[in-house]
Amino acid sequence: MRIARFSIDGNVAFGAVEGDGTVDSGDLVLDIIKGIPYADFELSGTKVPLSKVRLLPPVLPNKVVAIGRNYAEHAAELGNEVPDVPVAFFKPTTSVIGSGDAIEYPSFSDEVHYEAELAVVIGRMCREVPRERVKDVIFGYTCANDVTARDAQKREKQWARAKGFDTSCPLGPWVETDLDPSDLAIQATVNGEQRQLGRTSEMIRSIEDLVVHITEAMTLLPGDVILTGTPAGVGPLHVGDEVAVSIEGIGTLTNKVIKRG
Amino acid sequence: MRIARFSIDGNVAFGAVEGDGTVDSGDLVLDIIKGIPYADFELSGTKVPLSKVRLLPPVLPNKVVAIGRNYAEHAAELGNEVPDVPVAFFKPTTSVIGSGDAIEYPSFSDEVHYEAELAVVIGRMCREVPRERVKDVIFGYTCANDVTARDAQKREKQWARAKGFDTSCPLGPWVETDLDPSDLAIQATVNGEQRQLGRTSEMIRSIEDLVVHITEAMTLLPGDVILTGTPAGVGPLHVGDEVAVSIEGIGTLTNKVIKRG
Repeated sequence: MRIARFSIDGNVAFGAVEGDGTVDSGDLVLDIIKGIPYADFELSGTKVPLSKVRLLPPVLPNKVVAIGRNYAEHAAELGNEVPDVPVAFFKPTTSVIGSGDAIEYPSFSDEVHYEAELAVVIGRMCREVPRERVKDVIFGYTCANDVTARDAQKREKQWARAKGFDTSCPLGPWVETDLDPSDLAIQATVNGEQRQLGRTSEMIRSIEDLVVHITEAMTLLPGDVILTGTPAGVGPLHVGDEVAVSIEGIGTLTNKVIKRG
Repeated sequence: MRIARFSIDGNVAFGAVEGDGTVDSGDLVLDIIKGIPYADFELSGTKVPLSKVRLLPPVLPNKVVAIGRNYAEHAAELGNEVPDVPVAFFKPTTSVIGSGDAIEYPSFSDEVHYEAELAVVIGRMCREVPRERVKDVIFGYTCANDVTARDAQKREKQWARAKGFDTSCPLGPWVETDLDPSDLAIQATVNGEQRQLGRTSEMIRSIEDLVVHITEAMTLLPGDVILTGTPAGVGPLHVGDEVAVSIEGIGTLTNKVIKRG
């Protein structure tokens, strides 16, 4: 099931996405959810066209834990070794935006990059998850763009500003709950031109590895998000660009880049 | 005013601390607050002895932004240069505990350190704060312990696990809203023995610098917390230890170290 979060007439709701088109095709309908998706819920049968709503980030995470250098070719393209242990960092909730929202180019950087990533959405409060139980704590998957101020990332050692500025964490367009994430095509386009194309099977550490590693240290809550790293092909964004992250079986997350107002 | 957050009989409330003793002295009384401290509020006149409540973290941050290597002697004791730009990282909300709560020694580390720090509590939603307006966005100050798995910090490059594990962010005992933070004694003791003693005037970057630097990138929300770095003298904690962070004009934050259950 694809579960979107959206606003319509000032109200916020979750809905199940029905139909086969893309976000912009005009063919999709939302069946409004009664209850909350992480717990028991049912479909209301009340339907609205997706074209009539504003998509919101499909989850409201308490935290976003992201992983760096999890595809060998991407580590190499930035001149980095494949790390001995996963490189884990946080993106703050204030950085999260949805599909269709604008990425605001920050004033402290001249080199903002896209990074297409598979995002794992957690469904249950959990800590110290054994490898064989990882699938039980996952609610679903969405597309993410780990937008990065590359110049600040190099200068500042820890990445709170470089990867945590407002609008640097687009998530969406919705969460797909029925998906085998082990070998999916993942790509980024800028203004329609393909820039990244990889497969999730190229991850150095699997989703199981990452959930075990992260929850060894900290509790994850329903709605928390893990970004699983980006394949090779990262590059700059400029004001006016439209960047799209597409993952096979999920959909396409699209964001325009604007000057911060 | 000193504002504490606490639970009593299963209810959570804020209260103004009255009296002159320490947390354990039995001399303090809480005047329960009507409203929320970041907005308009008044004192109810209903009072409870502090000894009858459980102190909670005095704020519920959306995010905790922490600064590394902000005291020259501490940078030197770990063999680090004073950085050209502030080293900013996040501690997640799941790491926050209050005074009297236990620090749970994590399984992935054999070298957990205390770090006494002055914490700044934000009172207003803000971004791109000019230096001369910084004082307007600060609600108050509290004590923090930036508990760190030093071995993991060295191994893992980014510090999400090393400084983000559950219970690694003690805050408290309360927020002091009337304080000049520019030259306060700050100390850490372990089992009553002094281990760190510095002054906030030794910070390399001032609180104004840090708020400008952080909000250049990201929005801060009411209740968000900035940890301002630790003076020299950091060292290990062991299961059974009691660590206390005291800051002149605020009070003492005390936590025991236990084995993770």
